[in-house]
Amino acid sequence: MKNILVIGGGSWGTCLSKLLVENGHKVYLWEHNEEVRKVIRDTKENPKFLPNIKLPDSLNVVDDYADVLENSEKYGKIDILLLATPTQFLRNILKRLKNFLNYNIILVNVAKGLEIATKKRISEIIAEELGNKPYNYVLLAGPTHAEEVAQKLPSAILSVSENEEAAKTVQTTFSNLYFRVYTGTDLMGAELAGALKNCLAIAAGIADGMGYGDNTKAALITRGINEMFEIAKYYKANPKTFMGLSGLGDIIVTCTSKHSRNRFVGEKLGQGEKIEDIVSHMNMVSEGAETIKALYKIIKENNLKAPIFTALYEVIYDGKPVSELESTFMSRDLKSEFLS
Amino acid sequence: MKNILVIGGGSWGTCLSKLLVENGHKVYLWEHNEEVRKVIRDTKENPKFLPNIKLPDSLNVVDDYADVLENSEKYGKIDILLLATPTQFLRNILKRLKNFLNYNIILVNVAKGLEIATKKRISEIIAEELGNKPYNYVLLAGPTHAEEVAQKLPSAILSVSENEEAAKTVQTTFSNLYFRVYTGTDLMGAELAGALKNCLAIAAGIADGMGYGDNTKAALITRGINEMFEIAKYYKANPKTFMGLSGLGDIIVTCTSKHSRNRFVGEKLGQGEKIEDIVSHMNMVSEGAETIKALYKIIKENNLKAPIFTALYEVIYDGKPVSELESTFMSRDLKSEFLS
Repeated sequence: MKNILVIGGGSWGTCLSKLLVENGHKVYLWEHNEEVRKVIRDTKENPKFLPNIKLPDSLNVVDDYADVLENSEKYGKIDILLLATPTQFLRNILKRLKNFLNYNIILVNVAKGLEIATKKRISEIIAEELGNKPYNYVLLAGPTHAEEVAQKLPSAILSVSENEEAAKTVQTTFSNLYFRVYTGTDLMGAELAGALKNCLAIAAGIADGMGYGDNTKAALITRGINEMFEIAKYYKANPKTFMGLSGLGDIIVTCTSKHSRNRFVGEKLGQGEKIEDIVSHMNMVSEGAETIKALYKIIKENNLKAPIFTALYEVIYDGKPVSELESTFMSRDLKSEFLS
Repeated sequence: MKNILVIGGGSWGTCLSKLLVENGHKVYLWEHNEEVRKVIRDTKENPKFLPNIKLPDSLNVVDDYADVLENSEKYGKIDILLLATPTQFLRNILKRLKNFLNYNIILVNVAKGLEIATKKRISEIIAEELGNKPYNYVLLAGPTHAEEVAQKLPSAILSVSENEEAAKTVQTTFSNLYFRVYTGTDLMGAELAGALKNCLAIAAGIADGMGYGDNTKAALITRGINEMFEIAKYYKANPKTFMGLSGLGDIIVTCTSKHSRNRFVGEKLGQGEKIEDIVSHMNMVSEGAETIKALYKIIKENNLKAPIFTALYEVIYDGKPVSELESTFMSRDLKSEFLS
């Protein structure tokens, strides 16, 4: 049994808290929204982020995560700290968290994005903020919509870390009969794949919103994945990772599932809505709509060949028509698939 | 303008006949079912295979394809012969066709499968049957459901041939504003990808039929694609092709689209129906249900590591429970994603 502190009571943080309790661990869940904390504590449900799912009675909702980390006599020593908070909010949490990390802990992150201002990956943000604090960083990523994992539908995910032992600890901690955890060591590849697939899902959603069919979307996803390989080359990431659960698997589910919020944002864009209006009506964050800002800078600064991601940014933030996206892969000059 | 003879008035053959007429070509369509021929000729519709689509008045329906090939004075010299017939029926057509091929013609094939008895790819079957007849073989493959192309929804496809000029001729002949044709030269890779994806679509459909969610299906597809790479290695095919439209693109659409007949077969299997009953009630052929028989032999004879495809065959034809498929990728021994 492990002691686990979960930071973030959105759909995924809540779902994984439930799963970890069911796996026999002691779980403390902290969520920044006080009202949500209260509802979870009182009703053992999270109707805002994970409706219609009963949470275990023994899930502990806490009002201050620092308190849990400071009082090991009361709470037990925390073995794993699960970060389930959007990328753009992470840095502030880390700045405070740093003061309470005084022994070798496993940090498991489940967010997928790039920080807009710095264009950095999450492991880089963490390294920067935590400095020389002792910790092992693990990313948990794969085709796993919270709504389905919460219903115990069979799912598979990747536990990836530069420290293989840490990845294995996370594997055994999270695995159960309906949740299969594989391990991997290509952290950068998995981080990149996770960040980029959220952008691609918006593009796929735009095709849906414009009323195109499955053919169009499949072609768009395929060409988009090939742009992801171009970007991976620039990062010298292992392309094999992109073919795995944290890449292809997550791309397929994010681009095609009704549960995907990034795909949903795209669908609304495809129907002619503006990004500000869409985002202001959502109670969740679209990581893709943020990450594309950082990605666009990276593409431009390094002259990367990524016409779909480029068009996506320009459609969302530069006022280009959504049809721009289609024309990038339906353009009239005929060519070979890979050579040019 | 080209003269084109289409053999096979199923959904795809009919759809491409329509597209080619719209592109300004002279098209002769032959279909083996006399009743279907008559309906197309009389009504300019094909309600059995491509319902609710108006076909062009200038589409010529012919009662004997040999007549068209023999009488170039009457019909014009045929430049392109489009084979749109299921894999298992192809050999008989070729045996007769051979007698009428006396000049360098482009053979475009759109079927995707392996011949059960011989385990051969279509280009091999054609080479065997046509012997030293002059022809250039082109495969047209990608995420292109006929129902959507017929509605002019944007689609992209691969024209692939060992003869690049032939691939380019097909590219310019078929391309238009809603149908983008890329060229490629890795014929074997595209043939394999096309054959295998139909099998994988049945597996994906089984997950649907069992009531699993998008997570399960995405994991199954991802692990299945990695088995396809193992099989590609055995064939020494270029893995890049598997990442393109004829691989990944077609896999995504076939495994997720409501239009896919192979996925549909899987869905029924997942609901507990038997393959004989499913197939006897379809008016189309499931290429995947045939190809898996050849693939299973190839896997067994060469000790290939393909647990999902193996389980798929055993579920369909050896009476194993459909849950077998899930357990192959949800099994309890924990491991790394790629190393074992």
